[in-house]
Amino acid sequence: MKNIAILGSTGSIGIQTLDVIRQFQNRFRAVALSTNTKIDILEKEIEEFRVRKVAVANEEKYEELVERARKGKGKALKECEILKGAKGLEEIAVCEEADTIVTSFVGAMGIVPTLKAIEAGKNIALANKETLVSAGEVVMSAVEKNGVNLMPIDSEHSAIFQCIHGEKKKNISKIIITASGGAFRDYTREQLKNVKAGEALKHPTWNMGDKITIDSATLMNKGLEVIEAHWLYSVPYERIDTIMHPQSIVHSLVEFVDGSVIAQLGLPDMRLPIQYALSYPERLENNELKRLDLKEKNNLTFRALDTELFPCLKYAYEAGKKGGTLPSAMNAANEVAVNAFLKDKIGFYEVAKTIRKVMDKHRNKTKPSISQILDADKEARKEAEKIINGL
Amino acid sequence: MKNIAILGSTGSIGIQTLDVIRQFQNRFRAVALSTNTKIDILEKEIEEFRVRKVAVANEEKYEELVERARKGKGKALKECEILKGAKGLEEIAVCEEADTIVTSFVGAMGIVPTLKAIEAGKNIALANKETLVSAGEVVMSAVEKNGVNLMPIDSEHSAIFQCIHGEKKKNISKIIITASGGAFRDYTREQLKNVKAGEALKHPTWNMGDKITIDSATLMNKGLEVIEAHWLYSVPYERIDTIMHPQSIVHSLVEFVDGSVIAQLGLPDMRLPIQYALSYPERLENNELKRLDLKEKNNLTFRALDTELFPCLKYAYEAGKKGGTLPSAMNAANEVAVNAFLKDKIGFYEVAKTIRKVMDKHRNKTKPSISQILDADKEARKEAEKIINGL
Repeated sequence: MKNIAILGSTGSIGIQTLDVIRQFQNRFRAVALSTNTKIDILEKEIEEFRVRKVAVANEEKYEELVERARKGKGKALKECEILKGAKGLEEIAVCEEADTIVTSFVGAMGIVPTLKAIEAGKNIALANKETLVSAGEVVMSAVEKNGVNLMPIDSEHSAIFQCIHGEKKKNISKIIITASGGAFRDYTREQLKNVKAGEALKHPTWNMGDKITIDSATLMNKGLEVIEAHWLYSVPYERIDTIMHPQSIVHSLVEFVDGSVIAQLGLPDMRLPIQYALSYPERLENNELKRLDLKEKNNLTFRALDTELFPCLKYAYEAGKKGGTLPSAMNAANEVAVNAFLKDKIGFYEVAKTIRKVMDKHRNKTKPSISQILDADKEARKEAEKIINGL
Repeated sequence: MKNIAILGSTGSIGIQTLDVIRQFQNRFRAVALSTNTKIDILEKEIEEFRVRKVAVANEEKYEELVERARKGKGKALKECEILKGAKGLEEIAVCEEADTIVTSFVGAMGIVPTLKAIEAGKNIALANKETLVSAGEVVMSAVEKNGVNLMPIDSEHSAIFQCIHGEKKKNISKIIITASGGAFRDYTREQLKNVKAGEALKHPTWNMGDKITIDSATLMNKGLEVIEAHWLYSVPYERIDTIMHPQSIVHSLVEFVDGSVIAQLGLPDMRLPIQYALSYPERLENNELKRLDLKEKNNLTFRALDTELFPCLKYAYEAGKKGGTLPSAMNAANEVAVNAFLKDKIGFYEVAKTIRKVMDKHRNKTKPSISQILDADKEARKEAEKIINGL
């Protein structure tokens, strides 16, 4: 039995993680959950999974849930320990009952709790991209030092993990990360000028959260994945490639030194990488997941990504290669810009422009400590806000 | 250093095996070679690789080569021990100098030498399909008993091998073998009536020997591969599937119990599976093999194989499932029929018809000994000749 705590159980990945736990009750148990603001969903999760410990990051929502627990009729909620704010999240991350922490927070707020969990010897199922993007070096050395497993949850890195399973790292010659291309992949420069976030949120193939859907449309999502792959598999950026694959059936590929290419395929369903991350090194039989039938999905196409129209991917390579605090600054600027785009405060191109300006202004610190990384994040956010307000 | 003997060094696979040996001279050495009739090629191979032992299966050609050695100016040939006929092949298969035997014979004549090699404790790199098709049970139990490695050389089984490397066999839920579809894949029933072997020999994607090219056009090649896969990976026929993939980039796929699918891809080049079979568990860096670029090969298509137009695939499933001596009979009938088709003695449809008739007439023996298997082979050949002469 694996005891699992979920940092961010009310978002897309968190909910699907609970789907997997529900399906394999004899193997997995949810012991602690958390949310930023979505206490309605959290309340239902507490009741269904009889969870004894939760955290609510937003203080107002925390008070609201405590009040509900006092008055409410939910038996499990009444008996549940409710923790507050960032400290509460950290307590969840290191809670004794859990052996595996699923970090499905979106954004840089996932970094510190994930690090604490690693230091507490927890295995990590990582859906939070920003942790490795901003703090890859610190995180990976903590993983090594504490001898824990860090399993990627997103489909691309899970694919890469499966492709290199049983192979020697030295034999990897290239990682090829596939990209759906996002909602605007067939838009012209002119069309892109006036797109609204709402259009992007109808993402063609994957059902994802809002932030990642926009990241997917700007190709920043692919950029973040490139940096993640660099840290997860210690492969230099020169040997990480990306390619557009609109059908999202081939989730990524690895080329080996002999020229052989191994790929992982499947219908787009996050429950597979979640399940794999939780069950590894086992594979669990799951007939609820619809199987890929190549007689149906009978046309797999590939083409180059357009980094002129979608420059964020280039920026991410640049930040990754330069290293230091730059990826953290880039990521923070992206979070702020995407948020502004989601609220229709800025246009599509301003997302990349904001990031570019923040990166240009950033004074990079190499071999940064975690506090320098977090400072870079904070400063970049301020800078990005300033740029956006000045637009 | 691996010392390699090649059974069938003058055919397509044999020649490409020597290409690989030439490229990795610090790892592989050719110590013994053999041919059926092609002594001109053999002679050149002897000189280049300074081989000290060869066999010539055809007795006339044997005499001719001995004569050349006596008179010739080739230094290596003069010092080379030349063995004769089937006995000679068997001597090569068990020769002390070799630790690995590449069996690249075409047809059922590969069975006995391969078995002898296994019993002599040699590792096998198997390109001869018929060995496992006709004598799968006997061969695989000899492999186990003698603790040798049997590595597949053809691209599909090499792909499957790479896909399941590091995985547990119990977690395989399906093997999916891809097929180019062969030279006649887009022909109508009417067109197929009058096709000649010459047309098939212009095979669309792979550069192969004649017999296998016809097998590819009738889909018997895929049928033989299904039976091989059954024995190599102990997967029941119900869980071995086939699919047409005209581009021959995805060499095969494996679906696991969790629904995840792993595939192996590459440009069609037999040197990769040959190299992998010889170097396993290592992968050797090879920049001479052209790399797959999905931005070029950017459209991978799949469709069902038509077993009404090309019934041989069905026959192979049937023979495989029934087991016993039936696969041996089917294979023998196929060899005779393909040979007749190659000589324009029979039409395309008569190949399948001949096989069907031989299978219908065959009196199946379950759990056969190797001599019963060889008897079934002989009888089926006679029967097939009779049918063809009566057409």
